[in-house]
Amino acid sequence: MTGAELRHMAHALSLGRRGLGLCWPNPSVGCVIVAGDRIVGRGWTQPGGRPHAEVVALGQAGAAARGATVYVTLEPCAHHGRTPPCAQALIDAGVARVVASVQDLDPRVSGKGFAMLRAAGIEVVTGMMAEAASEDHAGFFLRTRQGRPFVTLKLASSFDGRIATASGESRWITGPAARHLVHGIRARHDGVMVGAGTARSDDPALTVRGFGGRAQPVRVVVSRLIDLPLMGQLARSAKDVPVWICHGPDAPSEIRKAWEGLGAKLIPAALQGRQVDAASVLQGLGKAGLTRVFCEGGGTLAATLLAADLVDSLIGFTAGLAIGAEGRPGVGAMGIGRLIEAPRFDLVETRSVGADVLHRWRRRAG
Amino acid sequence: MTGAELRHMAHALSLGRRGLGLCWPNPSVGCVIVAGDRIVGRGWTQPGGRPHAEVVALGQAGAAARGATVYVTLEPCAHHGRTPPCAQALIDAGVARVVASVQDLDPRVSGKGFAMLRAAGIEVVTGMMAEAASEDHAGFFLRTRQGRPFVTLKLASSFDGRIATASGESRWITGPAARHLVHGIRARHDGVMVGAGTARSDDPALTVRGFGGRAQPVRVVVSRLIDLPLMGQLARSAKDVPVWICHGPDAPSEIRKAWEGLGAKLIPAALQGRQVDAASVLQGLGKAGLTRVFCEGGGTLAATLLAADLVDSLIGFTAGLAIGAEGRPGVGAMGIGRLIEAPRFDLVETRSVGADVLHRWRRRAG
Repeated sequence: MTGAELRHMAHALSLGRRGLGLCWPNPSVGCVIVAGDRIVGRGWTQPGGRPHAEVVALGQAGAAARGATVYVTLEPCAHHGRTPPCAQALIDAGVARVVASVQDLDPRVSGKGFAMLRAAGIEVVTGMMAEAASEDHAGFFLRTRQGRPFVTLKLASSFDGRIATASGESRWITGPAARHLVHGIRARHDGVMVGAGTARSDDPALTVRGFGGRAQPVRVVVSRLIDLPLMGQLARSAKDVPVWICHGPDAPSEIRKAWEGLGAKLIPAALQGRQVDAASVLQGLGKAGLTRVFCEGGGTLAATLLAADLVDSLIGFTAGLAIGAEGRPGVGAMGIGRLIEAPRFDLVETRSVGADVLHRWRRRAG
Repeated sequence: MTGAELRHMAHALSLGRRGLGLCWPNPSVGCVIVAGDRIVGRGWTQPGGRPHAEVVALGQAGAAARGATVYVTLEPCAHHGRTPPCAQALIDAGVARVVASVQDLDPRVSGKGFAMLRAAGIEVVTGMMAEAASEDHAGFFLRTRQGRPFVTLKLASSFDGRIATASGESRWITGPAARHLVHGIRARHDGVMVGAGTARSDDPALTVRGFGGRAQPVRVVVSRLIDLPLMGQLARSAKDVPVWICHGPDAPSEIRKAWEGLGAKLIPAALQGRQVDAASVLQGLGKAGLTRVFCEGGGTLAATLLAADLVDSLIGFTAGLAIGAEGRPGVGAMGIGRLIEAPRFDLVETRSVGADVLHRWRRRAG
């Protein structure tokens, strides 16, 4: 593969990332169409999941698509869903060559898109920048394979791992640059999730602010008994920005009804011991369509997800202050006896963000 | 000042840093002598504090020092101590010009070295790269001004701020690259300090390993009642590498005698409440000559130093694993009620070290 080809695919990947958080349950795909050495079409999956990236790019290219090369970050779809299959649209447009990064895992597509293209005499190259593409599509693939969304856990803490003082004061441990970045990260996720304790003590809005008008991620609260303030920010805004509540089977029905009346969607989950089961919560969210969930704590929910090995990516913000052992821990009790039992993560990057340190990790394979 | 001058001073600073940890109670100075555009002498304070950097560099330069320019990272001394004054040696050698970074704070020197040189007709320039020099000499200056050493606190913890499991298992949370770096940091300090709990539970050697044969820093243990294992690594090696024990006034005299018999030096300190007073410990260490102390925990000593605002520099190593709230906290109880009371630090750098994140901070001024 040539440098120009890699640049076109990198371009398509960056276009595809624009739709992260906006396309669920569909994948966020990017597409670049090149005729000779000229880009004649660019597209990405539009909010809500349609039109697909290829259709947008073909629309731009028009007649110039004939004989052109198409760079696309996922195998073009082959089935009639809400839209006609993209593979057929590419054939109809007369493109000569399709370069794709990864094959789709959706059984309705997997391999069939490529087969359709090849059967029509189009040259197909696959696997270009497959690792980067697999990372971008990780949520979509995980939901397809395991039925649950990709989970990113945030821990914004003091130097000594505390997220609040003993009395619950947490505003602000990290600085404005880190908090702004968190809003950007929220924007690229389908849902933002917190535990009931955080919802009660911080009364967060969990919306994306500071990034212009755009669709908001779903706000998800995990609360066995839906023990949440009916006058809080989430309750007051549930009609405008979705609020989903993952609750236990024993949540009182009148409280469920009250939240439904406020506009919330209720997602029942099983219990594990006295807590809502984390795997069951994620299955419920996957069933409801979410592919990427950003968990912002608190310590109990973080510990539950970590202990169940359900955290795919960790994002730490470490601030330069010490709170001491009376402060609230960023990760609650995990029941770990030996170090070998502790879930491990591999470092992806570390850098400063304003006055704080950002460190990003991914689950260790195997 | 020219680029060449800055390069010579940067060179002198890097030479001076070679002696950090080896020169106490003296400052670790670097010196470069330049005749025309040729370096004719280089020197740094030798282990034990003498000969001084200027004398070493003059010895190399010989007759070439006549008419030369001398770059030195601290004001040359003006008093007869264990060695004749360096200012006089520079005059005798016939140098034409002395470029110094900072004035000494020692009242026996402060300004007098420069005055001696000027009185002899030597051109003196001061203040070049003063900030970097002040950082290198911070321990020496702090001891001169406040009687205590510069304190660097290390926290090597899991992602969630834990330094061991509930049962005390701590080997290993960070990886080999971080642990090797810690030995390098130890080597640049006069003393390595831990609390009694860490000495008991980890039985550490606290020596510098993996950096060739070199003088070892003093091992300092803070223990009110000297409740330390008499068969541990520190006790067994106290005759070879210094062990100093900072204890309370109520430490049993037979235990004091036993440790003195093993070769340890005992440094009494006052109490604050039921603990040894951190300020008193540091005054004792300063009086005994230490200018730079590297504290490696545990949580109780770290919290005591932080709460007393006696930590000048923080070095964090964050590993990609989660231990949960049952684990031992890296910083113990600090008695902080409000966030505004938390001691704050400014980020100096962050980078990856092997599989871990290094983040370095300095005390926030004011």
